[in-house]
Amino acid sequence: MQRGANLPLVSGYNESVVLDVIRRSRTQLSRADITTITGLSPQTITNVTRRLIAQGLVVEAGTQIHGRGKPPTILQLVPSSRFTIGVHLDPAVINYVLLDLAGTTVAHTCSADPPSSDPAATIKDMAREIESLLESSGVERDRVVGVGIAVPGPIDAAGGILVSPPLLRSWRDVPVRDSLAELTGMSVLLETDVNAAAVAELWADRDDSGDFAFFYLGSGIGTGLALGRQVHRGPTGNAGDGGTIMVPSAELPAGRKSEMLGHLATPQFLTEYAIDLGLVPQDSSFDTVLARAAEHDPAVLALFQRAAGWIGSAIVTLVNLLDISAVIFGGPFWNSISRYTLPAIVREVEQSPRRSTHRSLRFRSTILGEHVVAIGAASLVLESLYSPRATTLLIRE
Amino acid sequence: MQRGANLPLVSGYNESVVLDVIRRSRTQLSRADITTITGLSPQTITNVTRRLIAQGLVVEAGTQIHGRGKPPTILQLVPSSRFTIGVHLDPAVINYVLLDLAGTTVAHTCSADPPSSDPAATIKDMAREIESLLESSGVERDRVVGVGIAVPGPIDAAGGILVSPPLLRSWRDVPVRDSLAELTGMSVLLETDVNAAAVAELWADRDDSGDFAFFYLGSGIGTGLALGRQVHRGPTGNAGDGGTIMVPSAELPAGRKSEMLGHLATPQFLTEYAIDLGLVPQDSSFDTVLARAAEHDPAVLALFQRAAGWIGSAIVTLVNLLDISAVIFGGPFWNSISRYTLPAIVREVEQSPRRSTHRSLRFRSTILGEHVVAIGAASLVLESLYSPRATTLLIRE
Repeated sequence: MQRGANLPLVSGYNESVVLDVIRRSRTQLSRADITTITGLSPQTITNVTRRLIAQGLVVEAGTQIHGRGKPPTILQLVPSSRFTIGVHLDPAVINYVLLDLAGTTVAHTCSADPPSSDPAATIKDMAREIESLLESSGVERDRVVGVGIAVPGPIDAAGGILVSPPLLRSWRDVPVRDSLAELTGMSVLLETDVNAAAVAELWADRDDSGDFAFFYLGSGIGTGLALGRQVHRGPTGNAGDGGTIMVPSAELPAGRKSEMLGHLATPQFLTEYAIDLGLVPQDSSFDTVLARAAEHDPAVLALFQRAAGWIGSAIVTLVNLLDISAVIFGGPFWNSISRYTLPAIVREVEQSPRRSTHRSLRFRSTILGEHVVAIGAASLVLESLYSPRATTLLIRE
Repeated sequence: MQRGANLPLVSGYNESVVLDVIRRSRTQLSRADITTITGLSPQTITNVTRRLIAQGLVVEAGTQIHGRGKPPTILQLVPSSRFTIGVHLDPAVINYVLLDLAGTTVAHTCSADPPSSDPAATIKDMAREIESLLESSGVERDRVVGVGIAVPGPIDAAGGILVSPPLLRSWRDVPVRDSLAELTGMSVLLETDVNAAAVAELWADRDDSGDFAFFYLGSGIGTGLALGRQVHRGPTGNAGDGGTIMVPSAELPAGRKSEMLGHLATPQFLTEYAIDLGLVPQDSSFDTVLARAAEHDPAVLALFQRAAGWIGSAIVTLVNLLDISAVIFGGPFWNSISRYTLPAIVREVEQSPRRSTHRSLRFRSTILGEHVVAIGAASLVLESLYSPRATTLLIRE
């Protein structure tokens, strides 16, 4: 069903646009600067900034001095005007962050244990953890605009349900969103971990790179997609499962059945592979593999080159399919392998005969660190409230 | 750079919305019906329909009779108010269609020969062909709003350039868009063939299926993507190269080097494969392979089952990555193989252990026939002028 647009919606949209411009700017902005950037009329900017100031989101902060005449007033974001909480439910750990409106992490904590096999008990723990995060940070509750929770997929986005995560077997059809909302009394948004990571990058981005894949390396592998400055979630919220991309069989270890990226480039598989090859003792952990790489063991380094080849091959599939401009890498295990793999991944992608165009791509690790998914979960709330999205201009039913 | 929205843009957008609602409706609509559907106010609908009538796009056509009171006036599209021309430059043939505003093909013609190795000469032929299409159909030139041309990728969308199509070797860096615009005196839009096919489906769609992949089987293979009711073109216009998706090696013929879908499920490869297996004589064409299938040759049918397996595997990758709801099949060679492959493709996708969710998918062949790409090229012009896109609400620089 096609919906129209009307003036009140335009008004709300323009508020988001102006707030976004002020938030992302690297330089100090006056009303005149914002007029130029947004294309809006000076009168509209005057009205919109008045409303943003009334809500406490923006403040007048001194004047610019250049040339003669009345120096223009500078408008600044008030980072402490709003806060949001992000929760990352990972099979190995639960991370919590408290973010301010500027996207700065004000506080961080994590669970001592992995999520239990009793989802209801774990969700209660989450609610308690959120309370103590607020208490210890001294942030007033009425400044917290909501909670975002990121989970391994698949999810039922409409129902706010964690459906059947392969690495959290006892968490089947758990209504995480509504349970946590009831326990905390706050509004809660649910997202997959890989899409939350993409939201984090988009919210923090200052370089206008709105078409990228976020290559997420956790216990599993996924690829959150930002297309045209929007995270592509898909109708059920499960887009981004790049872990099922197939890779060429030529490079596979003998006897290996699966040719899926998500079965190959993971810490667990690389550890098993190193054991099979006799590079590390039986029962070694991934840390042992990493230690050998740090000692420049050529056989272990060659193994990481192979992983880089698989990852690069999957990225070529993504780039050809979606015409993205950049790949951003992150997730709990990315930091530990990036030095051994990133240059080879870039080489694989750049030199692949499968590339359908020769446009240049940008590759980088996330600047948001290992808690990028928790930060993304928190950003989700800010995005839903304050991000200018053209679709918010449409009249809802 | 973030741009604001303003009232004149809303006004133009709402015109597109109302025109779209009238065009797609299966039933007769009054102003009151349109008010309900769009969420716009009765006053806005009165103003918008007045403007659409003034432009000749819509006409008042009788009254609805139900119940008492003054019977409401029906609004109808005027299909003959605007026309558009679509050109599909395929490595084997050039197709031309003349479309009216309702999306009906008013005239069709095709070149006797494949595109020549002299692009400039071929583009001159195109311009002549367009002129004779207009003359023979008797459509007045001032009702033709533009020409769309669809080509094999990769393209440079911004420059309107056909860059380096693998199957049209002598067409390198050809400025198709501007050359054709100069020769015809009409505005011209350029698109890849697979994305044009997706545009065609979106423009003709009455079922609101805005998240799909168009699986295109021509001399090559591609997958045009519609995400959230918009064709996903990507920043350079080259999205949709699903032909480079890798498929599992287990099912590959011995000695086969490539595991790319676009090297496997094509008529050319299937013919070579059938020859290698001794199923058809040396130097057979694809028509011979099809003839054997029509005679129920089990070995040839098994070969099509394999192709279906590769196609199904690639579709699983797409569905997992993009969370699409439907797959639409078409392109010059689709009709000839659909009966032998579609059921097996559906089975492969539905039963794949790689599926990340169990949501139901819709599969169907295009209803637009074998000229879907030429129709898509023509629809491109209508889409750019009359399709309601939320991004058109943003102030341009």
